[in-house]
Amino acid sequence: MSSQDWRIGVAGLGTVGSGLLTFLGENPGFAPAGGKVSVTGVTARSRTRPRPYDISNLPWFDDPVALASAPDVDLFVELIGGSDGPAKAAVEAALKAGKPVVTANKALIAEHGAELAALAEAHGVPLLFEAAVMGGTPAVKVVREALVGDELLSISGILNGTCNFILSEMESGGRAFAEVLAEAQRLGYAEADPTMDVGGFDAAHKITILAALAFSCAPNFAACEVEGIDQVELLDIRMAKDLGYRIKLIASADRSEAGVGVRVHPSLVPLDHPLAQAGGALNALFIEGRRLGRIFIQGAGAGAGPTAAAVAADIADVMTAARRPVFQRPAGELTAFAAVDRSRSEVRAYLRLLVKDEPGVIAAVSETLAEAGVSIESFLQKPAAETEGVPIVLTTHQVSEAVLSEAVTQIARHPAVLQAPRLMRIARI
Amino acid sequence: MSSQDWRIGVAGLGTVGSGLLTFLGENPGFAPAGGKVSVTGVTARSRTRPRPYDISNLPWFDDPVALASAPDVDLFVELIGGSDGPAKAAVEAALKAGKPVVTANKALIAEHGAELAALAEAHGVPLLFEAAVMGGTPAVKVVREALVGDELLSISGILNGTCNFILSEMESGGRAFAEVLAEAQRLGYAEADPTMDVGGFDAAHKITILAALAFSCAPNFAACEVEGIDQVELLDIRMAKDLGYRIKLIASADRSEAGVGVRVHPSLVPLDHPLAQAGGALNALFIEGRRLGRIFIQGAGAGAGPTAAAVAADIADVMTAARRPVFQRPAGELTAFAAVDRSRSEVRAYLRLLVKDEPGVIAAVSETLAEAGVSIESFLQKPAAETEGVPIVLTTHQVSEAVLSEAVTQIARHPAVLQAPRLMRIARI
Repeated sequence: MSSQDWRIGVAGLGTVGSGLLTFLGENPGFAPAGGKVSVTGVTARSRTRPRPYDISNLPWFDDPVALASAPDVDLFVELIGGSDGPAKAAVEAALKAGKPVVTANKALIAEHGAELAALAEAHGVPLLFEAAVMGGTPAVKVVREALVGDELLSISGILNGTCNFILSEMESGGRAFAEVLAEAQRLGYAEADPTMDVGGFDAAHKITILAALAFSCAPNFAACEVEGIDQVELLDIRMAKDLGYRIKLIASADRSEAGVGVRVHPSLVPLDHPLAQAGGALNALFIEGRRLGRIFIQGAGAGAGPTAAAVAADIADVMTAARRPVFQRPAGELTAFAAVDRSRSEVRAYLRLLVKDEPGVIAAVSETLAEAGVSIESFLQKPAAETEGVPIVLTTHQVSEAVLSEAVTQIARHPAVLQAPRLMRIARI
Repeated sequence: MSSQDWRIGVAGLGTVGSGLLTFLGENPGFAPAGGKVSVTGVTARSRTRPRPYDISNLPWFDDPVALASAPDVDLFVELIGGSDGPAKAAVEAALKAGKPVVTANKALIAEHGAELAALAEAHGVPLLFEAAVMGGTPAVKVVREALVGDELLSISGILNGTCNFILSEMESGGRAFAEVLAEAQRLGYAEADPTMDVGGFDAAHKITILAALAFSCAPNFAACEVEGIDQVELLDIRMAKDLGYRIKLIASADRSEAGVGVRVHPSLVPLDHPLAQAGGALNALFIEGRRLGRIFIQGAGAGAGPTAAAVAADIADVMTAARRPVFQRPAGELTAFAAVDRSRSEVRAYLRLLVKDEPGVIAAVSETLAEAGVSIESFLQKPAAETEGVPIVLTTHQVSEAVLSEAVTQIARHPAVLQAPRLMRIARI
């Protein structure tokens, strides 16, 4: 087995697929376990689109399911994307045909991971997805394999390079979200429809997968709280910085007695924290274990080269014939993590208000918070800028989310408060 | 196979061994591959020494080789330490008996890895050593498994927590090496004989192992250049900081046309670099791949808990029945990396001189460097302190090590130069 040659079918020939074909073409014997890899079939939406790798000599399939089922394909690589449709159908077909599957598809695994894991285990084949999280930076393998000798407590990090790039550019260039997004789209860093990235859904898929691996659960994307960066204003970035924080889109998961809480939202991170220092399109992750302490991993989170390298590493893993359940426990024993009742959790928060520039407003806000039991940690008022009203910003000490939420609702009703209050969590890292 | 139970023999019951026994006792079913783990034999230098884990119910062996060969031991864990002697004999006995081996022994793998790999492969069993490098932080698995889909170019990092602690304390407390070392010994952070740590040999063992994995070579400890931190003076720490650097013990390996260069030495790291910011006993590692870019990993590099967690993760890996060669290629195909001729490589350097406080000295030094072809990047002279003479410090632009070395030899002969010049490399990271 260890020197078996492997015939690979690759579905999806965007930049990652082309990068993979180039690598496998140049390095057919790259896998340490021995044996050579050859590509025996490809499929994509368009056969004729110009690509950096010449596919004219590779057997072409119009239908991913047909490729996944082809008799001369031993291992199926899915790079089509999308949680349903042809990607899911082809992965299912490959698993049912007893073929190992390697995918970079975070949506597919986050939304249908448990069902696919059951299929993989029923047919005794691996289903690997290192490239689905942090591109070429090995988050999946680290959580899935390297840390099983400890009980993991929490994971938190920056898992979407597009959002991190946009937030970094907003800060460094003093530019608004919409302007930076438009530039990122021109440069190809953001999709034409940016919702998956800037809405937080891409990061949510990734943290859902890591949470399942860290806490031996079935992934449950529906239970992930998601807030994107589209509401982050330049004013908040500046105010946060004055308070010693940088705003990052933080994806996190932790296990407590209440269950497994999984969420993605813009958060304030102390400026001297490694997550605050991961700028541009970098991804970064902290993993905390009971005995291991905190492990930090940082690297490119996307890009054709790194993502194709992660896919290739998974192919090499398949070739070792290792047998592990997809999500740490046999699929039949997995329960999906349930949504945690957030109102019972405690947070420290950042609250920005736009108020009328008149006497007594600050006193009224402070009083409302004090009566509700919200203790203020710091307070910042900047001179009024071009906008109507005066922005005031405060951070709270630890407080229950339910209490905070009720206090903010009351403040919002105050006649001197001109806009819906802006509330963000301060990262607990 | 995937639900086989495993009987483990543990040799060496220091803090790591005791931590492992505690973990396995509480979590016999921790391995994702399924099957339970039980400890069926232990050995250590003393049977009666007080330990946090009660071993009175475990079968005791006086001889590690006998434990490694015992019929009711399926997997042998070696935590004795030392490159030769009972550790090596017991590991060899286990491999010859066809038993998988998990070890935390960096000296053993760095000095005898190739020969043990051949033995492991001849008997068809894995030899794993995650705990040998960076404790519970998964450097070995990342380099060995997660990055095989790329060509690695270089590795560099902080691999010895004791040295990092001492250097951090020297800087923060303004204290001399000997004083901080004595305190570290009192606190148990440094051994009674600190040579392995402060002499750089522990870090050299670790980078030798990572270099072998990264570049598919046999480990060759003898070819590793080693300089420790015992000659680092507080004055250099201060001068370096004034120039924007922090002194760290950096272990590095890179592949070039000249071969694989592996070395450990005190280096100047820019203050805003992540390696400069890894303080205390932390370990940190940068891995650079042609397509992956730079991946950064940081975490606890030692300690009973993290190290035992790494050993347990290796046990879980053995249980997956994965088949990989020990050092990326079959042992028979491995060649040891050869020592690279350093005089041909280029460096940027930090040079400190103690000179007589008289006119013309700086001009003479500058002239000698200029004539040799060494270009000065920055120059720093501090007012004379309590010592005789004036310390002057300079950093160079990129220069051949041979040229630099010759220039420094000439400078050392100048009658106004009072001490042997102090030369350190500026890290190329």
